[in-house]
Amino acid sequence: MAITMYDLAGAEADRRFSPFCWRTRMALAHKGLDVDTVPWRFTEKAKLPPPNDGRVPIIVDNGKVVHDSSAIADYLEQAYADRATLFPGAAARGLSKFVQNWTETVLQMGLIRLVVLDIWNHIRPEDQAYFRESREPRFGATLEEVVKDRDARLPTFRASLDPLRRTVERQPFLCGDAPAYADYIVFGAFQWARAISDFALVTPDDPVFAWRGRMLDLYGGLARQAPGYGG
Amino acid sequence: MAITMYDLAGAEADRRFSPFCWRTRMALAHKGLDVDTVPWRFTEKAKLPPPNDGRVPIIVDNGKVVHDSSAIADYLEQAYADRATLFPGAAARGLSKFVQNWTETVLQMGLIRLVVLDIWNHIRPEDQAYFRESREPRFGATLEEVVKDRDARLPTFRASLDPLRRTVERQPFLCGDAPAYADYIVFGAFQWARAISDFALVTPDDPVFAWRGRMLDLYGGLARQAPGYGG
Repeated sequence: MAITMYDLAGAEADRRFSPFCWRTRMALAHKGLDVDTVPWRFTEKAKLPPPNDGRVPIIVDNGKVVHDSSAIADYLEQAYADRATLFPGAAARGLSKFVQNWTETVLQMGLIRLVVLDIWNHIRPEDQAYFRESREPRFGATLEEVVKDRDARLPTFRASLDPLRRTVERQPFLCGDAPAYADYIVFGAFQWARAISDFALVTPDDPVFAWRGRMLDLYGGLARQAPGYGG
Repeated sequence: MAITMYDLAGAEADRRFSPFCWRTRMALAHKGLDVDTVPWRFTEKAKLPPPNDGRVPIIVDNGKVVHDSSAIADYLEQAYADRATLFPGAAARGLSKFVQNWTETVLQMGLIRLVVLDIWNHIRPEDQAYFRESREPRFGATLEEVVKDRDARLPTFRASLDPLRRTVERQPFLCGDAPAYADYIVFGAFQWARAISDFALVTPDDPVFAWRGRMLDLYGGLARQAPGYGG
């Protein structure tokens, strides 16, 4: 029986734009597990199976509900230990946490200030109100104000990618010759942006662009086929 | 026969302050290998065994010369494959590269602008002239000018440690339950600063401080016993 996954969707049901859900989606593909995704919107908190914290991803596997992308990765790794590992080797889980913390404190923090208005433009009117009311107090600014100088901030954002850039310039994936969960963590952030924004985060000659291309090609082009911008 | 290691030294021969040499020193200890270190100064390029690129660390193992800390780690891993691995598992080497690139583009770039004058203060007069002449053009400023606003830059530097901080707050080492090469890469930067500067990079209540303490305690307090500041 396929695993069910609750996945954040835009106005169109097939526009999936949660960085955390993309981690899980790629992890499921890595494990070769079938999945039925359920499009879910910000204002549909009552539709989520308990237990949950009002956020996605959530998976339901043979009646078992697991929420939070990190908990899901751990669950899949344990429940499907006979399949390709998400954490190859004794140090991979620990080091993946460093990659995750870089992604969440540097990459995603930089990204949200570039594309937050593009998110608003791609969700339903009833979700737009929720999104604006919940996000603007966090920024202390309107969504329009947050992004209005994004062109000026782009060089700093691109420079912040140096640790990623130098790594994937010299090896195919963050995890080395083959992708694993740490790659999905970082890729989730790019796929989030790609789903809702045509803002050019990296240039085509950037090693990060080439790595993102390799990620888009994985699993039969799973991520590339998803609605989004920029190839 | 012990391995010989050429190690960057200050005015006092036992003050060792190269972040790259500390990576190697910790890696040798991790492997349980005996080492005789040779104190070496910036202006003693002619004293290094060929092949070299005029920099340390360099090791000589049974007549074989290996230079560059990354090449040395790879050499040790291959030549002493039966000993504790520096890269536990298939993804560890790839992920360690990400940690290395973060260390070199974020951590060490931030650190040098805090402590570069302290380096100058801890080397011999004949090395001071070389150091000033080679470093000041890189900064486009005198060493004094580089550090003069370091107190003002400290909050930004501390914030840049967030990926490290969040990781070692929840697990003992970057590599998880036990240290491996990625830990030594990051630690090398802190040990570099510790050897020559009393500037408080992190506060005692910072998880980074506690992690650094665990690193200082490894291998019988190898790094803690080395001349330096701040415990």
